[in-house]
Amino acid sequence: MPTSIRPIADIARELGLADAEWTPYGRTKAKVLLSALQARRDRPDGKLVVVSSITPTPAGDGKTTMTIGLGQALWRIGAKPVIALREPSIGPTLGMKGGGTGGGLAQVVPMDEINLHFTGDFHAITSAHNLLAAALDNHLHHGNALGIDVRQVLWKRVLDVNDRALRQVIVGLGGRMDGVPREAGFLITSASEIMAALCLAEDLADLKARLGRMVVALRADGAAVLAEELKVTGAMAALLRDAVHPNLVQTMEGTPALIHGGPFANIAHGCNSVVATRLALKLGDICLTEAGFATDLGAEKFFDIKCRLAGLVPDGAMIVATARALKYHGGIPVPELGKENLEALVRGLDNLEAHVASVAFTPLYPLDASIKAKLETIATQIYGADGVEYPKKVDRQIAQAEALGYGQLPVCVAKTQRSLSDDPTLLNRPRGFRITINDVRISAGAGFLVALAGDITTMPGLPRKPNAEGVDVASDGTITGLF
Amino acid sequence: MPTSIRPIADIARELGLADAEWTPYGRTKAKVLLSALQARRDRPDGKLVVVSSITPTPAGDGKTTMTIGLGQALWRIGAKPVIALREPSIGPTLGMKGGGTGGGLAQVVPMDEINLHFTGDFHAITSAHNLLAAALDNHLHHGNALGIDVRQVLWKRVLDVNDRALRQVIVGLGGRMDGVPREAGFLITSASEIMAALCLAEDLADLKARLGRMVVALRADGAAVLAEELKVTGAMAALLRDAVHPNLVQTMEGTPALIHGGPFANIAHGCNSVVATRLALKLGDICLTEAGFATDLGAEKFFDIKCRLAGLVPDGAMIVATARALKYHGGIPVPELGKENLEALVRGLDNLEAHVASVAFTPLYPLDASIKAKLETIATQIYGADGVEYPKKVDRQIAQAEALGYGQLPVCVAKTQRSLSDDPTLLNRPRGFRITINDVRISAGAGFLVALAGDITTMPGLPRKPNAEGVDVASDGTITGLF
Amino acid sequence: MPTSIRPIADIARELGLADAEWTPYGRTKAKVLLSALQARRDRPDGKLVVVSSITPTPAGDGKTTMTIGLGQALWRIGAKPVIALREPSIGPTLGMKGGGTGGGLAQVVPMDEINLHFTGDFHAITSAHNLLAAALDNHLHHGNALGIDVRQVLWKRVLDVNDRALRQVIVGLGGRMDGVPREAGFLITSASEIMAALCLAEDLADLKARLGRMVVALRADGAAVLAEELKVTGAMAALLRDAVHPNLVQTMEGTPALIHGGPFANIAHGCNSVVATRLALKLGDICLTEAGFATDLGAEKFFDIKCRLAGLVPDGAMIVATARALKYHGGIPVPELGKENLEALVRGLDNLEAHVASVAFTPLYPLDASIKAKLETIATQIYGADGVEYPKKVDRQIAQAEALGYGQLPVCVAKTQRSLSDDPTLLNRPRGFRITINDVRISAGAGFLVALAGDITTMPGLPRKPNAEGVDVASDGTITGLF
Amino acid sequence: MPTSIRPIADIARELGLADAEWTPYGRTKAKVLLSALQARRDRPDGKLVVVSSITPTPAGDGKTTMTIGLGQALWRIGAKPVIALREPSIGPTLGMKGGGTGGGLAQVVPMDEINLHFTGDFHAITSAHNLLAAALDNHLHHGNALGIDVRQVLWKRVLDVNDRALRQVIVGLGGRMDGVPREAGFLITSASEIMAALCLAEDLADLKARLGRMVVALRADGAAVLAEELKVTGAMAALLRDAVHPNLVQTMEGTPALIHGGPFANIAHGCNSVVATRLALKLGDICLTEAGFATDLGAEKFFDIKCRLAGLVPDGAMIVATARALKYHGGIPVPELGKENLEALVRGLDNLEAHVASVAFTPLYPLDASIKAKLETIATQIYGADGVEYPKKVDRQIAQAEALGYGQLPVCVAKTQRSLSDDPTLLNRPRGFRITINDVRISAGAGFLVALAGDITTMPGLPRKPNAEGVDVASDGTITGLF
Repeated sequence: MPTSIRPIADIARELGLADAEWTPYGRTKAKVLLSALQARRDRPDGKLVVVSSITPTPAGDGKTTMTIGLGQALWRIGAKPVIALREPSIGPTLGMKGGGTGGGLAQVVPMDEINLHFTGDFHAITSAHNLLAAALDNHLHHGNALGIDVRQVLWKRVLDVNDRALRQVIVGLGGRMDGVPREAGFLITSASEIMAALCLAEDLADLKARLGRMVVALRADGAAVLAEELKVTGAMAALLRDAVHPNLVQTMEGTPALIHGGPFANIAHGCNSVVATRLALKLGDICLTEAGFATDLGAEKFFDIKCRLAGLVPDGAMIVATARALKYHGGIPVPELGKENLEALVRGLDNLEAHVASVAFTPLYPLDASIKAKLETIATQIYGADGVEYPKKVDRQIAQAEALGYGQLPVCVAKTQRSLSDDPTLLNRPRGFRITINDVRISAGAGFLVALAGDITTMPGLPRKPNAEGVDVASDGTITGLF
Repeated sequence: MPTSIRPIADIARELGLADAEWTPYGRTKAKVLLSALQARRDRPDGKLVVVSSITPTPAGDGKTTMTIGLGQALWRIGAKPVIALREPSIGPTLGMKGGGTGGGLAQVVPMDEINLHFTGDFHAITSAHNLLAAALDNHLHHGNALGIDVRQVLWKRVLDVNDRALRQVIVGLGGRMDGVPREAGFLITSASEIMAALCLAEDLADLKARLGRMVVALRADGAAVLAEELKVTGAMAALLRDAVHPNLVQTMEGTPALIHGGPFANIAHGCNSVVATRLALKLGDICLTEAGFATDLGAEKFFDIKCRLAGLVPDGAMIVATARALKYHGGIPVPELGKENLEALVRGLDNLEAHVASVAFTPLYPLDASIKAKLETIATQIYGADGVEYPKKVDRQIAQAEALGYGQLPVCVAKTQRSLSDDPTLLNRPRGFRITINDVRISAGAGFLVALAGDITTMPGLPRKPNAEGVDVASDGTITGLF
Repeated sequence: MPTSIRPIADIARELGLADAEWTPYGRTKAKVLLSALQARRDRPDGKLVVVSSITPTPAGDGKTTMTIGLGQALWRIGAKPVIALREPSIGPTLGMKGGGTGGGLAQVVPMDEINLHFTGDFHAITSAHNLLAAALDNHLHHGNALGIDVRQVLWKRVLDVNDRALRQVIVGLGGRMDGVPREAGFLITSASEIMAALCLAEDLADLKARLGRMVVALRADGAAVLAEELKVTGAMAALLRDAVHPNLVQTMEGTPALIHGGPFANIAHGCNSVVATRLALKLGDICLTEAGFATDLGAEKFFDIKCRLAGLVPDGAMIVATARALKYHGGIPVPELGKENLEALVRGLDNLEAHVASVAFTPLYPLDASIKAKLETIATQIYGADGVEYPKKVDRQIAQAEALGYGQLPVCVAKTQRSLSDDPTLLNRPRGFRITINDVRISAGAGFLVALAGDITTMPGLPRKPNAEGVDVASDGTITGLF
Repeated sequence: MPTSIRPIADIARELGLADAEWTPYGRTKAKVLLSALQARRDRPDGKLVVVSSITPTPAGDGKTTMTIGLGQALWRIGAKPVIALREPSIGPTLGMKGGGTGGGLAQVVPMDEINLHFTGDFHAITSAHNLLAAALDNHLHHGNALGIDVRQVLWKRVLDVNDRALRQVIVGLGGRMDGVPREAGFLITSASEIMAALCLAEDLADLKARLGRMVVALRADGAAVLAEELKVTGAMAALLRDAVHPNLVQTMEGTPALIHGGPFANIAHGCNSVVATRLALKLGDICLTEAGFATDLGAEKFFDIKCRLAGLVPDGAMIVATARALKYHGGIPVPELGKENLEALVRGLDNLEAHVASVAFTPLYPLDASIKAKLETIATQIYGADGVEYPKKVDRQIAQAEALGYGQLPVCVAKTQRSLSDDPTLLNRPRGFRITINDVRISAGAGFLVALAGDITTMPGLPRKPNAEGVDVASDGTITGLF
């Protein structure tokens, strides 16, 4: 532990937390128990500020860094900010994107631990998710009393690793003793419905209820099979017992930060947990929270999913727009350092304008609109598209979701973060395009529908030379190569 | 936290550990840093006692319970025992076997946490193991410069869940962007070579070296591809950085217990980590350690693998033999409670006799014997077999292992725990049988060869009604149904 | 042999064929050798009349029956017609559609033999096709010197059976001795590129050349691998040696009929062989030939592919339009027998009108137009569509086909026969629709590109109660249940 | 057609066949209708001589050549021999082994046609076999009313091609409309149970009955599913209607030869059809018939399966033993031409002796012996083994076969032809070995059990340079490269 990191016990004490209200994980990380939130139920909330960005460059947008830096600045001038961020995922940390702890002098620490196992929340989700998958295949193996159609199993497995070879697999091979053959697949843990459910749950009991109503498969007649029918949602909740509590760390300057929940913003709803946001609002006078990627992904879902479902009302929004990103959208893919590209920068403001237009906070669509109406509202009003295309398979999925009674859920669009459209090559503020929905998935436990637009994968791959190749650990335990 | 569990800080203090020598994981679990072992290098060791058993009944043998009970008894009479056990695995805990924290009044606590995620060691191994698998498939995807034969990939994936549907899978499906199709499979995390390597490693540097020399695949010409060629062993070691430190907990009576490493004894080498055993020998005056299942599995591997490789010399051995198990071997499958079955019990002593004969401590075979000679020595002298059968495939594997230079490694037999033979239906002390080796795997990082005898699977399945169905968690976080 | 079938020797003699110009297959079937065509090279052609239909009802359109009946009528009035038809396929004969030998008193005979194995042409194509597939997988197994990308093998296997379970398969499983794992699939033999090549080839030498230039796979860099690189096209041609000769049978009234080649009209180009048509034009004074399904499929391909490539010029065209089919398109799905539905019939004339408009014979598009231009011409001018949709995958396929130099080939659209559009539920003459191309395949040996529109499968499935269940054979060899 | 081949009509006439008793297939092949056999029912049989050989060298043993040559010799001296042989398979003809029409001046003609499609019998078997497979998968797709366990489907598919990539496949992939996923595989057509059933059937009615009782799958409770339950055995018999009739050709010297049925002798029962043998016994005064490979395979099955089931009694047996093969067994793998190796030749007589001992004709085992007793009798008395090993899987298969009521069937051992043992490297007359049975399959329609010994595959692969690469066809139809 570098000397600059203060004991987490000190941070907890400064936030007014009693010893019984938090649990140490090492000496610089802690879980704040939800009982602390319950005990402050009647305390007034601080201000809620959401940080989003313009469409990011391939190198990212510096949004986490800005959020942390802003928190540190407010801290220095005597305000009592509490930062609320998502947990990084091991997959991209060791893959191409890198970790999620900020940069430069604006980082949360201990950076290596936060980026790798942290307090085990992702592992708990992986365990609970895969227990359900194993229970499902076990049910098939022992005679399939529920009448699950093996061609219509919706519940996949998850791993927190970038592993494209697991996207489409066949399981249950080997004969009579080794399960039932079927097509299956893996998501990255961040895309697990359990991740979303945990981030939106109010407490353990709510989470358990959400687990029970997840749709895991269809029967031959199209009827849904719910997770609770497999009888392991109690055990899943037990595995998630500790993961529901927000994690407390600090910035490099000692500003308190709650880091909890880690759904990706391109393939999931992209916000840290509701309980971490609520706790930050109780423990400080201003909560700085991040909504992943640009406003078309992060802010839209923050408003229409997280705030709507949790009854949160943001007091302010910040959109990060670096000169570099503006130039990028203005037509300079790799801006030369120190060189002015004013014209390009001005052209890139078009992108900023689109994102600014997206953050007047008001529900974008009523929940009782049809699924297609919701999608078209998002596509036209947020993305600037002319409309939405639905291949026949998706038409059937939408009709099915509505027939099963899930039509009133909000819609979480999974889409490239690299463009306002669903085509990563269309920079700045594209016009005259239509987006295509290629898959619709029911996340009844999370409480929304997922619509996959364009070519989006829920299990990333590794690049030819992944970050992992640069990571090492010395005999004394010092880890190098993470960023 | 039940009131009966003392703060782990107190236990650590009583063992003479400085604050800088341990890290808290919650308030009742800790990791003792290996620096504590290094600092006590010159202190004389306590006595080393290994606990094994006769061939267990389907309900188990009570060996963990006896070890803990013995520790508590010694503690009460003023000795300074330190118990050294393996970590339980989530898979069987939620499957059929149940957890591994003892029973009745002889348990280690906090039982629920130890049985589920504990301090995250299993998760770290799962992450490191699967990172290597992803790197291998990524290498295939990007052109396979190493010339790996996709039909001869030896490195599987792991999950800590009982999931028979993952035993044999096909990965890499979906086309040009989704990896290269090939047959693959999953092991339970306990069977990961990394688990064995971690248990036998002296420290992080040693572990990293072991990771590098693991054999992950063969080329078309039969040459071995080592893990280090995939360039992620540094990152793997970073993921395992914390997992190398032994975990400290206590028994229900406050006796200190180091619980570290969790290889199964039927499918792996079945002993807790060398570093935990060493640390126990330094921190107390007697180390009680368990060697999984009966002496044919646990003790044999404890002597021939763990002690031989670590230079440990046991001072005593205990064989647990309950009246119930003796009667079971004597022909009473379900002994009636309270009823004497003296005749059966006497017949069952035959089994005990075989196990007693196995624990005169001396290396069973020289390392420079051939692989088949080693197997035949184990089979005839420990199991009482007449000899060993090798199907042609195994003949080729053995020849290949020797050609690749791994012939001098000790052999770890994976075999049913339910019989001295490889046939679980042969109780007591079977005679006149031969065992059949069905697979030989090179664990060069662990430092041994694995020989699978009979029908043994390295990924368990769930029973029709798994333990998980009885597990639940209340709103206050109390977990029920674990045992 | 029913007494009503005349010896084929008599039919051959009446057509002026010398004994050396034909080979018997049983006593009522023969192959006319291509030498007979060569010998009559300078004889003037008869008239060429093509028979197509309006969009058929699910029960079919009676086009084959009409062609045969017209031939019989011309025969009776003293003309010398020779009928030229496609060979039926065993798959649909035993599946849902039934055979292809006409109906009532207008049938070709021996009906059972023609519908089942006939003279073995389909079997020869199946053998040649699968030999190439085996050679390709064998090449992969022995080291893949050609650098084939296993994810981009384009050559599938074929079987003449309706077997949906073979549409998508994985082959090469089982380990080092059993090939290389990869995703593969089966087509019905009618959809084999060899079937198309055989139907368009002028003779055996031409066929062999076509076999050589078929594209079987791509390399990782996108370069094409041609069949000739696998070195078995000589053997394939040997297997097809007899299949190139047209088959001679007769109608129930003794009218000569050449039945040769059997590509489906929905998934392939739908015409009998060029050599059979040529031979019919030499042996009679009028050749009645059928172009499968309605003019949007059969006639369009007859004109733009068969006639264009073979230099044939039709003298007349007939469009079959039953009152029943007209009513069907007019809105009466199951017209009541004997009841007038004049209004519906008149409405259905709209469909007929569209098909009539399609048969003014002139090349529809120039070969040097772009692939998309060709598709749009067909879609708008023949189908009446507003345009064509291309998912991204297809965009890439089209670009690739053009980059590989195949852009100048004519396009064979695979599409439902049940509608002028690509949606089988749009009856009569739909307007205001767009078609979607879901796959583009290069058939360089056949000499065209295949574009799959809508949901079209190239391997049919069996219905719940297939025709095969009604088929039987008595001890004396009489087969019942075929139709 | 070479001038040396006489019209098959002449051959038929010389055999006393009326025109209505045979059907031409081209001008040099014919099918003799089974009505011809029925009409000669009361005519006395000729003499039955079976030709087998010693253990062949890799290049084969010249047994077919000898049989044909002997037939020609008898013909020249005025006897009336009729040769009865098996049909060649396209797979090995284009693979490694080559065709099966003899060699030098002792061949049956037209060689190219006999070696390739011949009269279509193999194609008919392929069609019928795969129709049943499609019906089974179709049954699964439509709800599986029969309760078939998808992990216990025994009926595979077949193709007459050497294609190792089809040995183990997964079918039914692609989702809800594309069948049910399951592990499956392909055999070469020669190994089809239908091939064996056709060879042992007395007529079409008998064949249809045999088709019905084939075991295609097991239910979860182990009960058998018979082919007739899938309702397509009538259609299968229709597809096989013509294939039941023996094929008539001639030798290069005009000696009549009946070539009918083609089960391999290593993986099947290795004899031509019973009806062809019966017909030869009626049409000539001596029937020379071949029993595939050496006596341990061919003759043993000829006696214990074909003769026993058909009530045939051989009058003589011939064992082909070339000097080259004797030297090979005597230790000279590649005998130098023209060089004497008398010592080696004498050593090799040991092999001959073993085969001579096998052909005293008497039933080797009673049908009511247990399956293991039968196997042990064959292994010890014919192969000279010390005994038989049964892995546990096979133990279960044998118990299951007996439980299902198939224990009284004769046993057809599938085994390497290259050794008297199941190990192709053990030449001459090996002693002191045990054979291992690795699979037992029920062929209830054929009327025997198949036991696979050692490493035997029922789908051959192609060598690096298959025969197909040397095969070509000229523009005039002349095929070269077959042998």
